[in-house]
Amino acid sequence: NEDVRELETELPRQYPNEIPHNEKLLSLKYESLDYDNSENQLFLEEERRINHAAFRTVEIKRWVICAMIGILTGLVACFIDIVVENLAGLKYRVVKDNIDKFTEKGGLSFSLLLWATLNASVVMVGSVIVAFIEPVAAGSGIPQIKCYLNGVKIPHVVRLKTLVIKVCGVILSVVGGLAVGKEGPMIHSGAVIAAGISQGRSTSLKRDFKVGLEECFCLVFAGGVLFSLEEGASFWNQFLTWRIFFASMISTFTLNSVLSVYHGNAWDLSSPGLINFGRFDNEKMGYTIQEIPIFIFMGVVGGILGALFNALNYWLTMFRIRYIHRPCLQVVEAMLVAAVTAAVGFVMIYCSRDCQPIQGSSVAYPLQLFCADGEYNSMATAFFNTPEKSVVNLFHDPPGSYNPMTLGMFTLMYFFLACWTYGLTVSAGVFIPSLLIGAAWGRLFGISLSYLTKGSIWADPGKYALMGAAAQLGGIVRMTLSLTVIMMEATGNVTYGFPIMLVLMTAKIVGDYFVEGLYDMHIQLQSVPFLHWEAPVTSHSLTAREVMSTPVTCLRRIERVGTVVDILSDTSSNHNGFPVVESNPDATQVAGLRGLILRSQLIVLLKHKVFVERANLNLVQRRLKLKDFRDAYPRFPPIQSIHVSQDERECMIDLSEFMNPSPYTVPQEASLPRVFKLFRALGLRHLVVVDNRNEVVGMVTRKDLARYRLGKEGLEELSLAQT
Amino acid sequence: NEDVRELETELPRQYPNEIPHNEKLLSLKYESLDYDNSENQLFLEEERRINHAAFRTVEIKRWVICAMIGILTGLVACFIDIVVENLAGLKYRVVKDNIDKFTEKGGLSFSLLLWATLNASVVMVGSVIVAFIEPVAAGSGIPQIKCYLNGVKIPHVVRLKTLVIKVCGVILSVVGGLAVGKEGPMIHSGAVIAAGISQGRSTSLKRDFKVGLEECFCLVFAGGVLFSLEEGASFWNQFLTWRIFFASMISTFTLNSVLSVYHGNAWDLSSPGLINFGRFDNEKMGYTIQEIPIFIFMGVVGGILGALFNALNYWLTMFRIRYIHRPCLQVVEAMLVAAVTAAVGFVMIYCSRDCQPIQGSSVAYPLQLFCADGEYNSMATAFFNTPEKSVVNLFHDPPGSYNPMTLGMFTLMYFFLACWTYGLTVSAGVFIPSLLIGAAWGRLFGISLSYLTKGSIWADPGKYALMGAAAQLGGIVRMTLSLTVIMMEATGNVTYGFPIMLVLMTAKIVGDYFVEGLYDMHIQLQSVPFLHWEAPVTSHSLTAREVMSTPVTCLRRIERVGTVVDILSDTSSNHNGFPVVESNPDATQVAGLRGLILRSQLIVLLKHKVFVERANLNLVQRRLKLKDFRDAYPRFPPIQSIHVSQDERECMIDLSEFMNPSPYTVPQEASLPRVFKLFRALGLRHLVVVDNRNEVVGMVTRKDLARYRLGKEGLEELSLAQT
Repeated sequence: NEDVRELETELPRQYPNEIPHNEKLLSLKYESLDYDNSENQLFLEEERRINHAAFRTVEIKRWVICAMIGILTGLVACFIDIVVENLAGLKYRVVKDNIDKFTEKGGLSFSLLLWATLNASVVMVGSVIVAFIEPVAAGSGIPQIKCYLNGVKIPHVVRLKTLVIKVCGVILSVVGGLAVGKEGPMIHSGAVIAAGISQGRSTSLKRDFKVGLEECFCLVFAGGVLFSLEEGASFWNQFLTWRIFFASMISTFTLNSVLSVYHGNAWDLSSPGLINFGRFDNEKMGYTIQEIPIFIFMGVVGGILGALFNALNYWLTMFRIRYIHRPCLQVVEAMLVAAVTAAVGFVMIYCSRDCQPIQGSSVAYPLQLFCADGEYNSMATAFFNTPEKSVVNLFHDPPGSYNPMTLGMFTLMYFFLACWTYGLTVSAGVFIPSLLIGAAWGRLFGISLSYLTKGSIWADPGKYALMGAAAQLGGIVRMTLSLTVIMMEATGNVTYGFPIMLVLMTAKIVGDYFVEGLYDMHIQLQSVPFLHWEAPVTSHSLTAREVMSTPVTCLRRIERVGTVVDILSDTSSNHNGFPVVESNPDATQVAGLRGLILRSQLIVLLKHKVFVERANLNLVQRRLKLKDFRDAYPRFPPIQSIHVSQDERECMIDLSEFMNPSPYTVPQEASLPRVFKLFRALGLRHLVVVDNRNEVVGMVTRKDLARYRLGKEGLEELSLAQT
Repeated sequence: NEDVRELETELPRQYPNEIPHNEKLLSLKYESLDYDNSENQLFLEEERRINHAAFRTVEIKRWVICAMIGILTGLVACFIDIVVENLAGLKYRVVKDNIDKFTEKGGLSFSLLLWATLNASVVMVGSVIVAFIEPVAAGSGIPQIKCYLNGVKIPHVVRLKTLVIKVCGVILSVVGGLAVGKEGPMIHSGAVIAAGISQGRSTSLKRDFKVGLEECFCLVFAGGVLFSLEEGASFWNQFLTWRIFFASMISTFTLNSVLSVYHGNAWDLSSPGLINFGRFDNEKMGYTIQEIPIFIFMGVVGGILGALFNALNYWLTMFRIRYIHRPCLQVVEAMLVAAVTAAVGFVMIYCSRDCQPIQGSSVAYPLQLFCADGEYNSMATAFFNTPEKSVVNLFHDPPGSYNPMTLGMFTLMYFFLACWTYGLTVSAGVFIPSLLIGAAWGRLFGISLSYLTKGSIWADPGKYALMGAAAQLGGIVRMTLSLTVIMMEATGNVTYGFPIMLVLMTAKIVGDYFVEGLYDMHIQLQSVPFLHWEAPVTSHSLTAREVMSTPVTCLRRIERVGTVVDILSDTSSNHNGFPVVESNPDATQVAGLRGLILRSQLIVLLKHKVFVERANLNLVQRRLKLKDFRDAYPRFPPIQSIHVSQDERECMIDLSEFMNPSPYTVPQEASLPRVFKLFRALGLRHLVVVDNRNEVVGMVTRKDLARYRLGKEGLEELSLAQT
């Protein structure tokens, strides 16, 4: 009888609110994650090894896991980096040779054709794998990760297949010359690796590797720590942060080591961070107090341009949702964009008469075109290059490298191209394109200032390019903290911390005045039940009673098997947790809440047929071990796969040993903000609403809360996708 | 009747768990803060201005407040900085002149006497003001701030008087030549300013300035953001973080502007952060992968030395608590330490024969002593200087500036001096002394490495001084995240992020193996009911039933005034919140929980005599407005000051309008970790424990939870100070 008792004390705390990997649920659009789960899971692990030394071992293993995540993420980032560099290099060399050849003898339209065809075919491959194999790998992945951290899991988002498609897809997109970056997809890749390793079920390390999902959510940037906090964590945990920070550090370290070996200057680890825009030299580039208002003005511009970008992208996305939902069409659109991008670039370069001396510049593929010998076409440094390199050039090229006309045209064209590109069915991030747009108009701004002030020392165009990039990025994605850190890291300089922060905040405030951030917009377009940081300000008048779903399907403590099967099979009410009430609710006594049991637990009980015949109710027939539950985690079979005979349907099932006897509850008078706070702080998935006598009156789910939102007209109710 | 209705809907959410500023409570040692409060307060504000535009105004005002906090904190930091620089400069010049004079004609003991007397007298003043006027201003203030952020308020800790004494005290301590830094006290000052402004009750701005206490907890470093998170925040809030970050930025900016004007190079804002250890140049000082194990080894050394420091300080503090609790004795001890510090410094300088050429070095007060002309005594750069300057010298002086003997002796002496100094009754931080000890042995280590490897490029002593400093600081205070950021900021270099992180983590892990961090140790020595991040690992077997305090003093919905007065006057049970139950508990019906009312609310009710005579129970006699409650906040009168006549004692008081009708509750079967999580995540102060039928069976307070702690032998119960 020892085993059963062990279960009795331990089990209820193990799976209070389980992550569903039920195939049935996967067929629906979204799942809710529950963070409350992992902590209990871990606590249980620890409880089993009750002594202190063993606890230490578990701790150390967790750090090792984080280090592994960091290393793997770093390696993936390296892989992307190196492959992109080589393939893009190859492409640009081929096109350059071609252009050089045809510049002399005429017939440059062949070059255009070659360039456009190369781009379109590369992008076609990238788009085909995304559209036909794993559509969730499209885009930057950051909205999906935001949802994941918020507690809503979009199916397949952390699968290995997604990782592979994402990595190949982003390489092909960048090589294909689209106006995209590889940073967002890298964050997504890091998340997949983290989730994969921490969920990993390799046989030998089975137990210990099951650290909670969110426990090791490592991202490639050290700024990633702040990112995951700014965007995600419901419940702040010091240890978690340390681990994320550690993993980020490890991944940056891995990346730097490998890249430094690859580039020949082995063992020199001095370059920090994943994105490296080159060090801004401090002596050369301070800033003065008079420049602050100028920076703020740039923030305003960035906010407005960002809002414009988002609004255009919103209409485009609406159009896509309505008309371009067939994979073939999506691939065709991606190819079209790739060809147009090449064509626009070519025409711009062709028409530009901005020639610069080649000497002393660090242009990778200098296109001479119609320039004099020893000179190169300046427009080509912006268009005929990977976007990341173009940003570096805009930041660091000496004053006079670009003429204002070039920058203006480039800004205009790239703005629309990037806007059109985001949302295509390819793996692609929006970080670098935003920075590039901003850097271009920032540099233009700097040059104009220099003209106006007649060449005062203020107007180093590189500095203004940096501020413009920050402003534009802030205006589009609306993050401040993490972006500040990322920008400081990418420029290797902490001096600009304050102005960058200022610019980002201004851009965010101005942008928020018009429309939402790009990521939030896309999340909302997908009707995800996303919980924001706080309940809407005017929601005090709503109480749990008005918000909750009712009536609730309750189970009795000793329930008929047939009833349980029927409830679980009922597709219309796909609940995940069921309140357990006193066995005789028809009697005069009140049917108080006794506990909560999860779908997954019920399925394990049914699968192992832990039934009692009506005749001998007091006899526990089967002994179920904790292991049975644990082995089933995280992929519980669907209810349809469990066969229950007609005889068995008449048996009884005693839930009181397996349920969580002390679920979180809330009285029905509690206000919406109060309920919201409970959900957010504890990472809940569902909450039982009780009346004064502890009787179940309803259930509040994440969707019930996410439904309310502050619109222009006050409180609005949204329609959300099925959870 | 409109007013009463307004109260009915609004009040219960305003003060669910109030911060007590009851004078009665202040006479006890500690108070608990409740973060849940401020949010409700704010929500209420917002609820009153229900439209969106007004909400925006409140938001903007909050940012303005944060900016004000940042500016004021920056100004205070400037003030300390400038005054210390001038006074210390004056002192060192006087002593230097004296030494120079007596070196030639003999009689250096006069110089020693002068130096010791100067130090002792300055420290005496600093110690007297702390010991006699405001003892809470002693030390670095960081343990107190940690407690505050954790939800326990030590009386007077955020008073204006404390700020003044702290600022003066820290200036006098540093000028008095003690082995102390000014950074900890600066953090404390920032906290006082933040609390002061956000609680501010100036007449015109009364309402809007009452943003929540923790809302604007700004600290002087940008690393302060991470500090306040690493140490404090229960409930992670994105907006709060932004505001803290913003305030930190503003304060750094203010500091830099003022200092740059003061130092003559106005408008140059390129120096970041409060502490500035000079920029580490990147080209000169990269690091290689082979150095990583060396850094880890340094982390181990730092951890061991830090643990030794803490253990010694623990015994010293125990001794002080037992024997040196009279203010006079405390002042005498501080003077003694000051004199001994001067004497040790003098003897070390006197005995040192480490002469270095004065040319090319940047020593502020070069003491020639027995060195040849054009040379200075190298030991004096370490001892005859403010600790902060000494750190900069150790980091940046070119190789060969110190001989190993000098560094070894300095490390040894300074270690014991700093250890003796921490815990004196003066305002003083331990940041800089820790860094100094570490920098000294780190540099020594670097020099030794250089000898061993026969002058390989590895061994730039400055780099090792930096790592040593990080290791020592990490070993003593055991923070990782915030220290990494602070160190990166102080060195103006992000390159060293990874190794610094690694060193800090190693130091923390090694140190934690032996004893707690210095701050935690001091918090524990003061028996504060401090809640750590997680419940002790082995506490699953405990349930709310075992942890809770019982029996609970409940009030009935309609209660006799006399009973309320008696309960509030009962000094033995100094509860802060009282469950409200159904009016007729003697009847057969169950006495279910109906709400929760706070001491402060009851006092306001008594003060305004919101009584009903027994005869006309249905008549509400007085109309109480929300304003009455708000005006009383945050200083509620003590119960003794409220006179209730014998007649009035027989009246009834109807609590149902004023209580919080939906307090957080927990079933009695809930495990300790579950209860703990609720407290930590929601920032609770007390939690009602109910049974299955919603009857009150007990109350869990912060103290009940803080009592349990994982010791060497498993779960231990501590005895804690009265809350």
